[in-house]
Amino acid sequence: MAPEARRRRRISILGSTGSIGTSTLDVVRQCGGRERYEVLALTGNGNVELLAAQARECGARRAVTADESRYGALKEALSGSGVEVAAGRAALMEAAAMEADWVMAAIVGTAGLAPTLAAAHRGADIALANKECLVSAGALFVEAVARGGGRLIPVDSEHSAIFQALEDDQRHAVERIVLTASGGPFRTWTRDEMAGVTAEVARAHPNWSMGLKISIGSASMFNKALEMIEAKHLFDVRPEQIEVIVHPQSIVHSMVGYVDGSVLAQLGVPDMRTAIGYALTYPQRTALDVGRLDFAKLARLDFEAPDEGRFPALRLARVALERGGLQGAVMNAAEETAFEAFVAGRIGFLAMADIAGETMEALAHLPPAAAMDDVFAADAEARRVAAGLIR
Amino acid sequence: MAPEARRRRRISILGSTGSIGTSTLDVVRQCGGRERYEVLALTGNGNVELLAAQARECGARRAVTADESRYGALKEALSGSGVEVAAGRAALMEAAAMEADWVMAAIVGTAGLAPTLAAAHRGADIALANKECLVSAGALFVEAVARGGGRLIPVDSEHSAIFQALEDDQRHAVERIVLTASGGPFRTWTRDEMAGVTAEVARAHPNWSMGLKISIGSASMFNKALEMIEAKHLFDVRPEQIEVIVHPQSIVHSMVGYVDGSVLAQLGVPDMRTAIGYALTYPQRTALDVGRLDFAKLARLDFEAPDEGRFPALRLARVALERGGLQGAVMNAAEETAFEAFVAGRIGFLAMADIAGETMEALAHLPPAAAMDDVFAADAEARRVAAGLIR
Repeated sequence: MAPEARRRRRISILGSTGSIGTSTLDVVRQCGGRERYEVLALTGNGNVELLAAQARECGARRAVTADESRYGALKEALSGSGVEVAAGRAALMEAAAMEADWVMAAIVGTAGLAPTLAAAHRGADIALANKECLVSAGALFVEAVARGGGRLIPVDSEHSAIFQALEDDQRHAVERIVLTASGGPFRTWTRDEMAGVTAEVARAHPNWSMGLKISIGSASMFNKALEMIEAKHLFDVRPEQIEVIVHPQSIVHSMVGYVDGSVLAQLGVPDMRTAIGYALTYPQRTALDVGRLDFAKLARLDFEAPDEGRFPALRLARVALERGGLQGAVMNAAEETAFEAFVAGRIGFLAMADIAGETMEALAHLPPAAAMDDVFAADAEARRVAAGLIR
Repeated sequence: MAPEARRRRRISILGSTGSIGTSTLDVVRQCGGRERYEVLALTGNGNVELLAAQARECGARRAVTADESRYGALKEALSGSGVEVAAGRAALMEAAAMEADWVMAAIVGTAGLAPTLAAAHRGADIALANKECLVSAGALFVEAVARGGGRLIPVDSEHSAIFQALEDDQRHAVERIVLTASGGPFRTWTRDEMAGVTAEVARAHPNWSMGLKISIGSASMFNKALEMIEAKHLFDVRPEQIEVIVHPQSIVHSMVGYVDGSVLAQLGVPDMRTAIGYALTYPQRTALDVGRLDFAKLARLDFEAPDEGRFPALRLARVALERGGLQGAVMNAAEETAFEAFVAGRIGFLAMADIAGETMEALAHLPPAAAMDDVFAADAEARRVAAGLIR
């Protein structure tokens, strides 16, 4: 074996204390742990106890909390471990730019954009679990990864499914991409029933165990809306080639339809570790101790057309796809703002899409982004507009 | 473009007047017709009117009927066409050995074995629709294709699905192969209800339009039994890696499960042209005018465990897989013999599996085949034993 092949792969996990981050550490353990992987950086936010425990267990070189006020607590939790400790935004950016071969980009929301870009510029392979990089920065982000020389490997279960079902040399033969959607907890609810729900009700996802932001986004199907925009940038397809189908069991993770009528689908139990493992060892597959599908037990898989009347986020995504430019960034920032207001009890569940839609209309005139600063400016402007609508 | 790339691909269709053969000619038309393909030979059996019409339409160099008594009729039907005409077994073998780049092997039953081998020896890519080449000759057939230098591309919807869902460089990461089965017209019937059915009842397949042999084989699940053995040879998997799941809608054509828990499935409307097109233009995909899946209309896909009590052919396949050697050839020949007796009204529906099983027991002592002659000898011996059991 060549020395290069024997060298441990250097990896970093941005957002290691969240749901994707903890699963990633489990996958790393299953795929050989310290024998095969050298963890350069783990980054988290307020939960420094977990961050410290993770860093000790995997032997990370550095642990970073984005929350400067938690520096002391993290330092203390890691005393005597040999793990370097840092805190704050600049430290996070520095950790993202360490010389990793592979970076899991799992910081949720727009906050993940800058550190992920830093990792991409440095040339790491990017395992992308953050939606906003593609939704807000789109082509600029794809270009940044390409220029850095790394690969962009999706980790979302839907995009991982498409990535797995895509034949590399047959991308020109792709006719459509079919994103599956669980439909969330309100799949069968009327608009009137949805109008009064609280964040606690909305976060109860039927199939996946996820963070609050993603759970609420699943309930409103805003997640799916963002995924439609991500799919466009990841797979270079036209808006009309992107379909959404509601599939309540979340077993078929997504599909690719080809010009010969053939459809390739990727299926699995709802467990993010398969997609994370695929991203970690791509193009190889590595054995994972995750659940296996038992088709006789599954018994049936259901599909139904999504209802854009009850789930207007899907319609907004079509608008953003058709308009292109910064509409994805605007939609995402407005929705994040509206999401925070919903969780705080300041607006109702249905108002989130109204505010996103109105903000998109108000900022439909923005020219396409020439540089990342335009993306950040559009993001800030959309938050201002959305906040004004909320008041 | 290099001259080589511009040269028309030379193809032959063995069994052109059957269901697969006519679909193949349609696919050839859709994929460019005479512009891209030069048809060397079409072969058929008694239906010389159709054979002649096909040969005229695609401009075949030669048309061959295996039925010597139909030579005159074929000659007359093609008079003035410029198409060479021949008849009989030797002529069929000669046509199979013409210098085609690609041969569709669609002669049903053991009769297809020798001509397909002739094409394989000559070095053609083999699009395999005949089950017996792999079931009876197994490794010997796979070796013959490899020695000839051609590729072996399955055309059965199930094996084509697996072929499409198999990542070439990840064959070592395959954990299991999941063959789907419609369950046929008797999926929900009791053994008592099946005992009295006639061939007319048994041939009514719920999803696919197929020939008599295959329709009856679907009703008894004998087809699926043969496909399990084919899968072993095509994909080099162990018997315990082959699963069968009943899926009445025939939309998921089959699946591959990997060691990371991921399952890749190929789906499509029940139309053989997608699999044929894939085999014709592999590794490229070419646009085909076949139906597209509409998941909202499909609404649901069902799965259930197969019942080996009611469908003992599946149990026989497990026995043949475990024993290996010539048990596949014996099982197949015995079943063909029993099938003919069933169609002639001489034995009941359930007796087919009894006879196949008893014949396998009687010939369990046969040593593995060292050469094709051993396969033909086992085939003949199994027919003798089965015929004795029928009397």
